[in-house]
Amino acid sequence: MSSNPLESIGQKAKEASRILAQAPTAQKNAALCAISATLKKNSAAILAANEKDVEAAKAKGMADAQLDRLRLTEARLQAMVDGIGVIHALPDPVDRLLESVTRPNGLRIEKRSVPIGTIGIIFESRPNVATDAAALCLKSGNACILRGGSESWHSVSALIDAVQTGLKAANLPAEAVQTLPSAERAHVGDLLTLNAYVDLIIPRGGKGLIARVQAESHIPVLSHLDGICHTYVDAKADPAKAVAVTLNAKMRRTSICGATECLLLQQDIAATLGKDILAALLDAGCEVRVPDSLMALDTRLKKAAASDYGFEFLAPIIAVAVVADVRGAVDFINTHGSQHTDAIITEDTAAADYFLRHVSSAIALHNASTQFADGGEFGKGAEIGIATGKLHARGPVGLEELTTYQYRIHGTGQTRPV
Amino acid sequence: MSSNPLESIGQKAKEASRILAQAPTAQKNAALCAISATLKKNSAAILAANEKDVEAAKAKGMADAQLDRLRLTEARLQAMVDGIGVIHALPDPVDRLLESVTRPNGLRIEKRSVPIGTIGIIFESRPNVATDAAALCLKSGNACILRGGSESWHSVSALIDAVQTGLKAANLPAEAVQTLPSAERAHVGDLLTLNAYVDLIIPRGGKGLIARVQAESHIPVLSHLDGICHTYVDAKADPAKAVAVTLNAKMRRTSICGATECLLLQQDIAATLGKDILAALLDAGCEVRVPDSLMALDTRLKKAAASDYGFEFLAPIIAVAVVADVRGAVDFINTHGSQHTDAIITEDTAAADYFLRHVSSAIALHNASTQFADGGEFGKGAEIGIATGKLHARGPVGLEELTTYQYRIHGTGQTRPV
Repeated sequence: MSSNPLESIGQKAKEASRILAQAPTAQKNAALCAISATLKKNSAAILAANEKDVEAAKAKGMADAQLDRLRLTEARLQAMVDGIGVIHALPDPVDRLLESVTRPNGLRIEKRSVPIGTIGIIFESRPNVATDAAALCLKSGNACILRGGSESWHSVSALIDAVQTGLKAANLPAEAVQTLPSAERAHVGDLLTLNAYVDLIIPRGGKGLIARVQAESHIPVLSHLDGICHTYVDAKADPAKAVAVTLNAKMRRTSICGATECLLLQQDIAATLGKDILAALLDAGCEVRVPDSLMALDTRLKKAAASDYGFEFLAPIIAVAVVADVRGAVDFINTHGSQHTDAIITEDTAAADYFLRHVSSAIALHNASTQFADGGEFGKGAEIGIATGKLHARGPVGLEELTTYQYRIHGTGQTRPV
Repeated sequence: MSSNPLESIGQKAKEASRILAQAPTAQKNAALCAISATLKKNSAAILAANEKDVEAAKAKGMADAQLDRLRLTEARLQAMVDGIGVIHALPDPVDRLLESVTRPNGLRIEKRSVPIGTIGIIFESRPNVATDAAALCLKSGNACILRGGSESWHSVSALIDAVQTGLKAANLPAEAVQTLPSAERAHVGDLLTLNAYVDLIIPRGGKGLIARVQAESHIPVLSHLDGICHTYVDAKADPAKAVAVTLNAKMRRTSICGATECLLLQQDIAATLGKDILAALLDAGCEVRVPDSLMALDTRLKKAAASDYGFEFLAPIIAVAVVADVRGAVDFINTHGSQHTDAIITEDTAAADYFLRHVSSAIALHNASTQFADGGEFGKGAEIGIATGKLHARGPVGLEELTTYQYRIHGTGQTRPV
């Protein structure tokens, strides 16, 4: 057996997970309160640690969108505390009775939610993922091992210090939430082969990270690919809705995964309604990259390159393509998208139905903004991200999605007939 | 891009999966009927193909338990046809409304079941898995690629021929159910890296197969490890129940995954009630392997070796261990078991509750035989096996477990506020 440098971290996490799995709701909630209190108490130290990360990232020439994701402020720290408050208020997802059936032989079969065990979370840039993830795992009875990007090393370490202080204050093991011993990149590989102790890996980041995790992991993966979201404006779209929804889908916040990155226009309305939508985007300060056929519509338009499709800008930039109809739109999305979130704008219910049924995304919307791709907007209260794989959970991953289940069968001495 | 010899099979499966995902229930059921009819029509050819496999396996010295798994008979073929009839009668698991919520902003969020896509199934020995798996995948709208053990090559090929004839008769693509071009072992590796086309791998077999699949697969895996099931007889067990349930759990059928392989006796009743249970097992023709401390109880007992624990006999052999209490039993099971199915026999509800909550198995039973670990006994009608992992599905994997879900959101032009 080759030794894994994270062996001891894994072992401690597994031991902590057994305690957490049986912890009463009140104790888990007490830990969440204590974590919030510690985050506030340690805020100066946390912001100072973050400042180190931001300065180092600036020196390395990090792009503005990424810098914005990395930066913590008093307000963002308060938002993190508020986020923990939301999780505190949510019902405990463990030990829910999911199904119950009494069989003709008298066996009572209960299907009950149980924690998954230990979850490894690998994320990039945003340090607030650390407290969100820790709080969600804690409330759902899972231990977790967090690995932020090396650029957020100081921030994440300071945040996890506060989390562990909170855990100890509630008599829960500090090892329920751990981070790695250093920012060394090799530790990602070590974490992915810690299958004796880790039950699930959740990567949150770009295609490079996801691809690496999927290739190297010996542990089941719940992928959180960033969103390459599309809005398709159909021939029978209501013009006012089409303009308002597309503008919101792209421009409300451009740095979130539910932001539309590509606009698909049905060919018959491209030069009419399409022109109005492009003008609205341009007026709002969006860079609009279109195919040759649309270049004449507005002097402010830029020409799209092939690489603009299937690309996540996370910025006020949008790629535009023209498609023949809803079938063409679905084919385009299933080829270029990331199975995250895609929308159709139309008053044609048959086209909407076709779109919702055939698009392979976790979230398919009719006449609504892709920016609704968010656990809070689904009524889940909080999420660890939007899962883009097909197994276990798709779309927003909240507390319930961080549990699995066990069958518990109550008998009175039943034997199975031959 | 290195070329995968299964590329074309994967591509065809993915195309077929898109058709299958949208196929109406009536068409899928018509295909199931046609498959049953073809299996009956082709029965002589199928049994002849199976005879080839059995003869070759005998020549290689295959053990009796394995030979029994491999062998097809008229009766077993009829049981396979009956199995397809059961799946025919089950409700279509696709497009079920799993949850529905209307948000304060008027968005109606529906969570609906959808097929997973294409499923690769790798199984050993039992050729009947081929038709079970094909029928379950078909009814749940999934394409599948089946890879039986090389020892069942002729049997599985003959069965898949019949399945494809049935699919074509119902105007569904024959490529919805495919097998590999040869029994070559390297093809397992090829299938495990077909991630562009295959969404899920289900291995059904022993530890060697599962370990290989988990190590090599670039595709999510739903493991079906064979069952290393335990029955724990507590100090407060009802003697009559303990004898009857243990006997049934071990001896009803010894070659199924739900058969108990290890009996745990609470130390205070080992020499009393334990003695009676061991005598009942011995009387029924079971070989009973015990620790030194129990050897004096009966002259027919054999001495257990360390390797008898955590071992799947699939034969009338049982290992016996003595534990201090329910905590010791749970620790033993969580160390030596396969997270499949484990039972406690007791009249002490606190001990039963502790056992059901702490044992990490997919199925935990109180006062009932581990042989109830079966989709049919759960009311699922049919199963592809018992999943022993923690993600997506645990325990019996039937039609519902072969689906995933998609969020479909119905709006009227909603935009997300800033």
